[in-house]
Amino acid sequence: MTTIFDAPEDFATAALAGFAAIYARNVRLVKGGVVRSTKVPKGKVAVVIGGGSGHYPAFAGYVGPGLADAAVAGDVFASPSTAAVARVCRHADQGGGVLLGFGNYAGDVLNFGVAAERLRAEGIDVRVLPVTDDVASASVETPAKRRGIAGDLVVFKIAGAAAEAGKPLDEVERLARLANDRTVSFGVAFGGCTLPGAAGPLFTVQKGQMALGLGIHGEPGISEEKISSASDLAKLLTGKLIAERPAGTRKVAAVLNGLGSTKYEELFVLWTAIARELADAGLEIVDPECGEFVTSLDMQGCSLTLLWLGDELEALWRAPSDAPVLRKGVIIAAEPATAEIVDAEGPQSFAAASEASQQSGKCIARLIGNIADALREAEEELGRIDAYAGDGDHGQGMRRGSAAALDAAKAAVAAGAGAASVLAAAGDAWADRAGGTSGAIWGLALRSWSNAFSDDEKVSDAAVVKGARLALDGVTRLGRARVGDKTLVDALVPFVETLEREAAAGKPLIDAWTVAAKAAQDAADATSSLTPKLGRARPLAEKSIGHPDAGAVSLALVARVAGEFLRAADSD
Amino acid sequence: MTTIFDAPEDFATAALAGFAAIYARNVRLVKGGVVRSTKVPKGKVAVVIGGGSGHYPAFAGYVGPGLADAAVAGDVFASPSTAAVARVCRHADQGGGVLLGFGNYAGDVLNFGVAAERLRAEGIDVRVLPVTDDVASASVETPAKRRGIAGDLVVFKIAGAAAEAGKPLDEVERLARLANDRTVSFGVAFGGCTLPGAAGPLFTVQKGQMALGLGIHGEPGISEEKISSASDLAKLLTGKLIAERPAGTRKVAAVLNGLGSTKYEELFVLWTAIARELADAGLEIVDPECGEFVTSLDMQGCSLTLLWLGDELEALWRAPSDAPVLRKGVIIAAEPATAEIVDAEGPQSFAAASEASQQSGKCIARLIGNIADALREAEEELGRIDAYAGDGDHGQGMRRGSAAALDAAKAAVAAGAGAASVLAAAGDAWADRAGGTSGAIWGLALRSWSNAFSDDEKVSDAAVVKGARLALDGVTRLGRARVGDKTLVDALVPFVETLEREAAAGKPLIDAWTVAAKAAQDAADATSSLTPKLGRARPLAEKSIGHPDAGAVSLALVARVAGEFLRAADSD
Repeated sequence: MTTIFDAPEDFATAALAGFAAIYARNVRLVKGGVVRSTKVPKGKVAVVIGGGSGHYPAFAGYVGPGLADAAVAGDVFASPSTAAVARVCRHADQGGGVLLGFGNYAGDVLNFGVAAERLRAEGIDVRVLPVTDDVASASVETPAKRRGIAGDLVVFKIAGAAAEAGKPLDEVERLARLANDRTVSFGVAFGGCTLPGAAGPLFTVQKGQMALGLGIHGEPGISEEKISSASDLAKLLTGKLIAERPAGTRKVAAVLNGLGSTKYEELFVLWTAIARELADAGLEIVDPECGEFVTSLDMQGCSLTLLWLGDELEALWRAPSDAPVLRKGVIIAAEPATAEIVDAEGPQSFAAASEASQQSGKCIARLIGNIADALREAEEELGRIDAYAGDGDHGQGMRRGSAAALDAAKAAVAAGAGAASVLAAAGDAWADRAGGTSGAIWGLALRSWSNAFSDDEKVSDAAVVKGARLALDGVTRLGRARVGDKTLVDALVPFVETLEREAAAGKPLIDAWTVAAKAAQDAADATSSLTPKLGRARPLAEKSIGHPDAGAVSLALVARVAGEFLRAADSD
Repeated sequence: MTTIFDAPEDFATAALAGFAAIYARNVRLVKGGVVRSTKVPKGKVAVVIGGGSGHYPAFAGYVGPGLADAAVAGDVFASPSTAAVARVCRHADQGGGVLLGFGNYAGDVLNFGVAAERLRAEGIDVRVLPVTDDVASASVETPAKRRGIAGDLVVFKIAGAAAEAGKPLDEVERLARLANDRTVSFGVAFGGCTLPGAAGPLFTVQKGQMALGLGIHGEPGISEEKISSASDLAKLLTGKLIAERPAGTRKVAAVLNGLGSTKYEELFVLWTAIARELADAGLEIVDPECGEFVTSLDMQGCSLTLLWLGDELEALWRAPSDAPVLRKGVIIAAEPATAEIVDAEGPQSFAAASEASQQSGKCIARLIGNIADALREAEEELGRIDAYAGDGDHGQGMRRGSAAALDAAKAAVAAGAGAASVLAAAGDAWADRAGGTSGAIWGLALRSWSNAFSDDEKVSDAAVVKGARLALDGVTRLGRARVGDKTLVDALVPFVETLEREAAAGKPLIDAWTVAAKAAQDAADATSSLTPKLGRARPLAEKSIGHPDAGAVSLALVARVAGEFLRAADSD
């Protein structure tokens, strides 16, 4: 049970602020995250990490000399926005480039990936590293499909030690990837967790049972068994990992991680049995850690992480660090940073635009106004649909995102921006304010769409159709969903394909759009028969059968509202 | 729920071993506790702390430079034995004397107090410091009745910093007492905890309610309220403590402590609100700590501790420390200790004894054999009675203690010991093996009784009666129970008073004893109508009405068995 909070929606922000106040010696608060409060040498590679909140000490607790330079924090169990990732990276960058580390989850891959692209366009060298240590989440043949769990700590520790040693970005990236390739984790859960303000748990485990490989957000595990003795549990955990031991490995780093309500003394009991199993396997344990490193609020359970060591990785694992959650070795004396961090972002300036393109920009802003109105009205209904398979916040996110997009579009229009800039600004604001995966998807879609427009010309019908394709490409390139996964993509694909087909057949845009919007609606309705993929918690995924996907429904709604707007504008 | 263990009765020992393996840099394991694994200067005051297990990081997690020198660990929620306390102190002593710190609970006061007496007799200067920070547990007028909760960390930190600075024992004791006088805590609980292997929770809190001032073993609080917002909870906690703010105080150290299942992010949310309240009260916060410092297994809830600072205490609070749970400042580089710790205790040697006293010693050993037999048979029944008001381990403790006493008595007889030495050895073994409060009481009773005997003479009837009085005096001097508290004392007092009265009236010992045993039995039966005192968990205390006290019942049983033995010996 998560019990202490004021407004549930402010939980993650308030927690981060309190953390930063307690650990002022290590970190200072910036919008959406924390950066080190100690001096960092110019030219040092910045290790920036992050993900959803609710996993403390992941990720803010890893910030400090010898470990991470900064951490980005999303809402509880939700990816931080692209804008937040980019913003925190800009604060952390010392000119040496950025290694961007996160767990391998769809929302994070999307938001961190888009942020990396944006930062590269600004001239910052950024490498992305999705951590993939959870052996229960995919087979050894497809390591890139594995989720990131407590291996985060291990991989980021190696990257942080390499960066602290002054290694260049190529080398930090190589070592971090090596560490990720050699890090494996396996966990068990005895009980679920409850989100702040929720009436019941997000997921549960049957009493007396343990769920093997259950994910830290309740993603499906591999099986359930009766809870065993500490000795048998140690055999189970070590057995799963030793099965992937690279030939010739003699030494391991080990992290025994508690998920929240499984207490330190239980972990110590288990550790004794694990150490025995590892020794029996002929493995020497180097600097083991036992405690809470990646939690899931008050979830019950634990995971074991092993890093197969060679000389290079061993030295980095043993290196000192001084983060709130990992103080190793005789601590590096660190001076407080002195430079002020300025988080205020002034009014955006836009490229000069033609009169015709400004007119199109105004039209786009009015359209976004209609969309925002419709989404505000639909907020409750979308939330209700989303609650079958998720935490029911989809309506809230869409309302917040579209309202922010409208504000940004209006500001861009007032600043004389052209069509491309108005739509891009709207997309960025949507992603930043809505948060989570759907916010990132919508932001990415609008920004991609804007690449078909320009600030010099009126938006043509052909540009609208081309923009739709660019939006779909952007979403499928950085998102992970495919048709049939019960996401917005199920409606977006038929919408774009229909629009292209009808336009190619010579139909006017209004008519083509109307047919496409109908196709999107049909596809959204048809998601009722699907089960969500992408690692949703199993009981929730099953509960959603018979109900459509909220993301697909909202896409169809936006398509319909846009069609009505086009028809009304045409008849003016 | 405590889920991970092998044998529940080995939980505390296995947890301590795992902890010592993980933190080998800080500590090494000795029998019943841990001592620093780093070099300690000769002549430094040793700060030795301890209490029951289940409260990690209290107390082993506090061991390291700048904090404690050693920690003694009892069974889960049970005081360590007198022998364990004394043994760990001997390992930690560097010739500068020992400050012995523990929470103010009956079992700890008893075991640490008796150990201190024993160590003083060996020439080690020992000062005892029961921590009394919990303002909910007694009024401001009777601070000595208050329990110790998370204030333990604060008081031990001050003592540890003073000792590390090389101050002499008088000064370390003065500063530790000053810190204790100026440390206040108040806590709330949202849910209870479950002992390893137990079918249900030890105590519960009504769903949606919070219990104000509930103790860390479920001792009664002051009231229950509906769970409030973080802001209101911050007002509640700070309000209770600021009510005791000494005049003129401008600065405070603060510790926000999680009890187990209340997570770090919740504590950070609460901290932000607490910091605001303290600032509004004109208080400057120095080096706040927020996390788990004194837990109760998986209990839900938190407590706030404030230390009212003056210059002297502020400097000690800010001083560096390097314990597993509190690494402050740039860490003192510490060399590993090199000397081996030898925990093996060779066969005990005894003073030369007269033939007559040896005969009495043999008789005592036979009597203890009968008692051990009777307690083994009664184990289940005593456990059943104890389960109404406690954790149902009384029968187990009595069986273990009496069996150990028999072994020790036999060994003493074989080594030619006299009556006094046989009974003293039996008492020490009983206390060491039985553990908990009842073990300490029985050990203390037998050792005190033995002071009426000698190794030179046969045991006289008068010596037996005098011994009974000494036993009662010992138990009431160091224990805290009074008649009516529903403990063994309810039976022991009438037993001793009847024995004295009947003996004074000229009755032979056998007859006097028989009447006294009957009085003990009647008194034990009469405990059915009483409610336990001494800070038992309220629901359990109420459940026990209508059932006698297990401690009183076992005393009456032992008295009866001894009476039968005396009669049989007389008729031989």
